[in-house]
Amino acid sequence: MQRDGQTLILNRKEYDLNRFDKIYVVGGGKAGASMAAAVEDIIGDIVTEGIVNVKYGYTADLKKIRINEADHPVPDEAGCRGAKEIIRLAENAKENDLVICLISGGGSALLPLPVKGISLSEKQEVTKKLLACGASINEINAVRKHISGIKGGQLARFSYPATLITFILSDVIGNYLDVISSGPTVPDRSTFADAKEILERYEMLNTIPESVKNYLESGIRGETPETPKAGEDVFTKTQNIIVGSNIQAVMAAKQKAGELGYNTMVLSSFIEGETKDVARVHAAIAKEILQSGNPVPGPACIVSGGETTVTIRGKGKGGRNQEFCLSASLDIAGLDSVVILSGGTDGTDGPTDAAGAVCDGKTISRAVDKGMKAHDYLCNNDSYTFFKRLDDLLITGPTNTNVMDVRLSLVGKKQR
Amino acid sequence: MQRDGQTLILNRKEYDLNRFDKIYVVGGGKAGASMAAAVEDIIGDIVTEGIVNVKYGYTADLKKIRINEADHPVPDEAGCRGAKEIIRLAENAKENDLVICLISGGGSALLPLPVKGISLSEKQEVTKKLLACGASINEINAVRKHISGIKGGQLARFSYPATLITFILSDVIGNYLDVISSGPTVPDRSTFADAKEILERYEMLNTIPESVKNYLESGIRGETPETPKAGEDVFTKTQNIIVGSNIQAVMAAKQKAGELGYNTMVLSSFIEGETKDVARVHAAIAKEILQSGNPVPGPACIVSGGETTVTIRGKGKGGRNQEFCLSASLDIAGLDSVVILSGGTDGTDGPTDAAGAVCDGKTISRAVDKGMKAHDYLCNNDSYTFFKRLDDLLITGPTNTNVMDVRLSLVGKKQR
Repeated sequence: MQRDGQTLILNRKEYDLNRFDKIYVVGGGKAGASMAAAVEDIIGDIVTEGIVNVKYGYTADLKKIRINEADHPVPDEAGCRGAKEIIRLAENAKENDLVICLISGGGSALLPLPVKGISLSEKQEVTKKLLACGASINEINAVRKHISGIKGGQLARFSYPATLITFILSDVIGNYLDVISSGPTVPDRSTFADAKEILERYEMLNTIPESVKNYLESGIRGETPETPKAGEDVFTKTQNIIVGSNIQAVMAAKQKAGELGYNTMVLSSFIEGETKDVARVHAAIAKEILQSGNPVPGPACIVSGGETTVTIRGKGKGGRNQEFCLSASLDIAGLDSVVILSGGTDGTDGPTDAAGAVCDGKTISRAVDKGMKAHDYLCNNDSYTFFKRLDDLLITGPTNTNVMDVRLSLVGKKQR
Repeated sequence: MQRDGQTLILNRKEYDLNRFDKIYVVGGGKAGASMAAAVEDIIGDIVTEGIVNVKYGYTADLKKIRINEADHPVPDEAGCRGAKEIIRLAENAKENDLVICLISGGGSALLPLPVKGISLSEKQEVTKKLLACGASINEINAVRKHISGIKGGQLARFSYPATLITFILSDVIGNYLDVISSGPTVPDRSTFADAKEILERYEMLNTIPESVKNYLESGIRGETPETPKAGEDVFTKTQNIIVGSNIQAVMAAKQKAGELGYNTMVLSSFIEGETKDVARVHAAIAKEILQSGNPVPGPACIVSGGETTVTIRGKGKGGRNQEFCLSASLDIAGLDSVVILSGGTDGTDGPTDAAGAVCDGKTISRAVDKGMKAHDYLCNNDSYTFFKRLDDLLITGPTNTNVMDVRLSLVGKKQR
């Protein structure tokens, strides 16, 4: 985004800022504060007003745009109030107004607006259950969009006929616009029928709150309007623009590692799957570097991105990045020159105050010295306790960005 | 192994073949026939006699060494008869004789020799129960070695004081000598007490056959000799040599792909973990190649080795290589220029007649055309049926080798 006088240039498309009566800024996500600050830097002088929902602590001091702190990953009333205000601003926007929407990861939880008849806690219960049984983000979103008043393109519907420009910082593999923060300004590809099918797939249809089931049924019967779909008028004045994603963070890490003298390799920014097994592949690559110098000779830095999932079977505390390191540490135990780090770029890994963890070949023996069996902690999904006791948590605090995870494997030279 | 006149050179160590009165060849494993053929090629003229147990069909026509076909993975009486004959040959070998032992993957099941008082089926029952309760391969081997008459270094004890040279084709990640085929000529690190403790750990001590329990107890009381341990005289005349492992197959595939014009990369020969999630990492790498040309620009061939595991939750038919392709096909669905192959180098994937399978971006849509939902087949571990109906099984028949799996990902050029 560039400004040239009263012209705003976005992806080579020009917007005449004089054309707009009012300019509203809305949005939600962990990077909301830094994105809003960037907007104020460029067009702060002509912004009318704005409100952006962010996670507690992920804030900034701005002039025109109000930063509204709310809870994440479990939404709260503060988030709801902000979401309602966002809808009010969008509804107020007229044909000659501009709505700028700032979306980043975490926006799903930070823009909570359950439909009438469903309480926030009932909505949360559904999400929690889907998470616990290992549902994919696409599946969770299809359900969430259909019990929400803002997700799945519905914010675009409220903004129309104003011009709507959404800047998106992607925290989703493949950068699917309809998935990031459940795509409040993007045509929705899922339907009420999809949502129901997903709940059936995980055998949850009879254990979710009655209100949710009834609402989905009313949608399938056509008594409740579908989320806006591609081709609808609503989207004729909407532009969605990705301004950042995981690959930038991964490439920046690769560049820095190269400057530090490592042979670097980007494995993939599309990494997904069950955390503990994805970690084993990373450990296997480290072993091969030590053994044969493949895929790159040591000293090597392998960078990978994306976001894995954890199927929760235990009762411990942790996050995918910490569990990644816990699993990897079992496979690299005893190796001399391997260090593996995994961290969430947002500074938050699961419901913990850590961004991730770091491990090496001595992690397991150090744990044994403290009376901890790593395998038991892994089975109990208790990676936070494990690394806290070792003082090997990665703690960054709020980073005001959110482009999924970055993992680094540092590996020494071939050992024979 | 090289021969120079009457001198045999092994890992720079020279053996004067004139020194030996008789030369016996014994062994077991899926690669037994081709290993025995290699021995006949080099020193067939001076071999006295020999017997090697192989899997049914994995045979060869030899002059001096008898190839004895037996069942795998479930051992049978033919395997027992061969094992007894191997022990007889080893026992007959005198101080000035040479015993050459040929070990390859599958040797554990192909060299079955329960101790007196324990039947083959009782021994199998114990292994099965340990497998079912998730015991590790090390735990299973500790028990198996202590109810076997040949495993855990015992073949070395029978051969002593003859010179013993074991050639080993590794099917184990990390090439641990005491793990490959339960190390019949390798010092055993486990004890009778360990074996009992493992059975106690899994609460099996009172459900296993009485004969097994009694035998272990007699070992603990010292009435039955322990398996040979490191430092014992038995091993002063023993040399164990790894002659091949997964990395050779992986490097050969890399070289061939390079000759065909691909940009090649060896990911790792240490790949392990749950198959379907390991497959997702491979798919993620393919996506990154298309998106950004990392880790290597297309046209690329990524080669990986090792061996994954499948946690069986369904009732279908399949193997880890076929399940790998089934899982990968879900992630690469719709992509234009990605082909993924996974195959067992022994030609057998799970209890099927296929070595593996091949998939691409059209696999899922072709399956849909045949009324198959890939996700359901994956959940049911029914990869064989899935790929058989698509005619995409990889069928090689017996290959007479066994160095775990090789996977190939072919990926086209960057798409933007």
